[in-house]
Amino acid sequence: MYQFKTRLSQYASLTEKTLQQYLPEESGDKVTQAMRYSLLGGGKRLRAALVLEFCLALGGKEEDALPFACALEMVHAYSLIHDDLPCMDDDDMRRGKPACHIAFGEATALLAGDALLTKAFEVASSNNISPNQIVQAVLTLSKAAGHHGMIGGQRMDLENEQIPANIERVEETNLLKTGALIMAAAKLGCIAAGASEGIILLAEKYAQNIGNAFQITDDILDCVSSEEVLGKPIGSDAENNKTTYVSFYGVDSARDIALQKVNLAKQALNMMDSAMVNSSGFLYDMADYILSRTN
Amino acid sequence: MYQFKTRLSQYASLTEKTLQQYLPEESGDKVTQAMRYSLLGGGKRLRAALVLEFCLALGGKEEDALPFACALEMVHAYSLIHDDLPCMDDDDMRRGKPACHIAFGEATALLAGDALLTKAFEVASSNNISPNQIVQAVLTLSKAAGHHGMIGGQRMDLENEQIPANIERVEETNLLKTGALIMAAAKLGCIAAGASEGIILLAEKYAQNIGNAFQITDDILDCVSSEEVLGKPIGSDAENNKTTYVSFYGVDSARDIALQKVNLAKQALNMMDSAMVNSSGFLYDMADYILSRTN
Repeated sequence: MYQFKTRLSQYASLTEKTLQQYLPEESGDKVTQAMRYSLLGGGKRLRAALVLEFCLALGGKEEDALPFACALEMVHAYSLIHDDLPCMDDDDMRRGKPACHIAFGEATALLAGDALLTKAFEVASSNNISPNQIVQAVLTLSKAAGHHGMIGGQRMDLENEQIPANIERVEETNLLKTGALIMAAAKLGCIAAGASEGIILLAEKYAQNIGNAFQITDDILDCVSSEEVLGKPIGSDAENNKTTYVSFYGVDSARDIALQKVNLAKQALNMMDSAMVNSSGFLYDMADYILSRTN
Repeated sequence: MYQFKTRLSQYASLTEKTLQQYLPEESGDKVTQAMRYSLLGGGKRLRAALVLEFCLALGGKEEDALPFACALEMVHAYSLIHDDLPCMDDDDMRRGKPACHIAFGEATALLAGDALLTKAFEVASSNNISPNQIVQAVLTLSKAAGHHGMIGGQRMDLENEQIPANIERVEETNLLKTGALIMAAAKLGCIAAGASEGIILLAEKYAQNIGNAFQITDDILDCVSSEEVLGKPIGSDAENNKTTYVSFYGVDSARDIALQKVNLAKQALNMMDSAMVNSSGFLYDMADYILSRTN
């Protein structure tokens, strides 16, 4: 019988196992060690779960979605490594352990991030589906991760520390920094299943809204959680003088906004119901989970 | 009438013009500025020239090779930005002007490098040739640039500063750090032309040898050139305690070895003569040029 948490952890295990196989085998060299350190054994694999669930719900095959799911997790891991570097956010802890550059030094962390980003494209293009679908996926991944996607969000994030940002700008920053990869996850699942353009647009709409809710919850957790539960220092937003949903609206209103986003996400799902040949309710539960998560 | 230097500069202009079009339009944001700063208006575009010439010589079309040529130049530019960072080689000058992180700051340089690497895959997969050829190209590019390719060479380069390297290790380092992208250039030209596996292997053999000659010449120039001619500080290898062909063999023997490599490269070209429907002698001249270049 379907249970959300069970399904989520099955997806995470499957992704973990496959990432292990994709990664260069353990060897003496520090860059490989750093890649494995930052990629494996951590994270909730929400992006991978979205790729897998969208593909399966739309009648696609697990093995067609897995390479894309792993590629996305590699891009996510690389972005965290580079984000934590001293010249960026200068964070010493990540997922409850020392950040990559603390454990391996800056040069190795830089190269490990570069290598994970590069590997993502190798893995995505090693998929056994049609070359047409692969090209579509590589385009999706590169646009989502690139200068007009995630990197653009990282840039705006840095700028927001210098210039006070209004709420529209904060929303745009979040849309790029976190939303772009989450939207790519939904789209990659659809591509793996061979879904139509209309379905892809609805899936992106869903993902954009849960991505938004995810970021708002992140801001709230940075304010109200503890370092033990979250696995990274709390209060860093306030310390870095960052504008967040919480600093604009306060915790309670931010929660309300997140709930609205989750409802918009569910509306988008409703509209793609007829194409969901294997729907389990997982995507609805995912939206609720993002709202209620504690780490 | 064909002249090597004219053809080389035609290829460079064409590449430059196309890179301008691929790059995000000039805007206020610093990452875009940094991408343009490091990618445009500099470099000899040897890698792009190899892609274009191999494709044309094998009967392929210029427009099919151009996206791959530009993708390769983007990967090359990103690698230089990250290589120059303080945590890596800590070089302040590049191509006769301040390094990217000197001009724009470390955070922006890091993101500009990340963005160029990501853009390379977007550009490669935006090619209008068959999806099959694109997938082959993305695989080639990601493997050449990745942990078992160029990044592996960067890692070994860092390690060689700590542990004295023997000549076999220096050769392996060079093969990965410089050779991998030059071999990818030849292969991408072949892929764009739809060449056979046998032709690709010969093209890679040629490229491996000119790549090797290129690195040996680099070592020699670092020792005997001047900062004005080379556009970057000289003597940095000796200063960084790096093992090079010159530190092993001395300048004269290093020159002899480079000449041997160039002859091996020409032998590989001879063997693919029947497939070269549009051969101009450019690839032979390129081998000689790499030996005789002064910057």
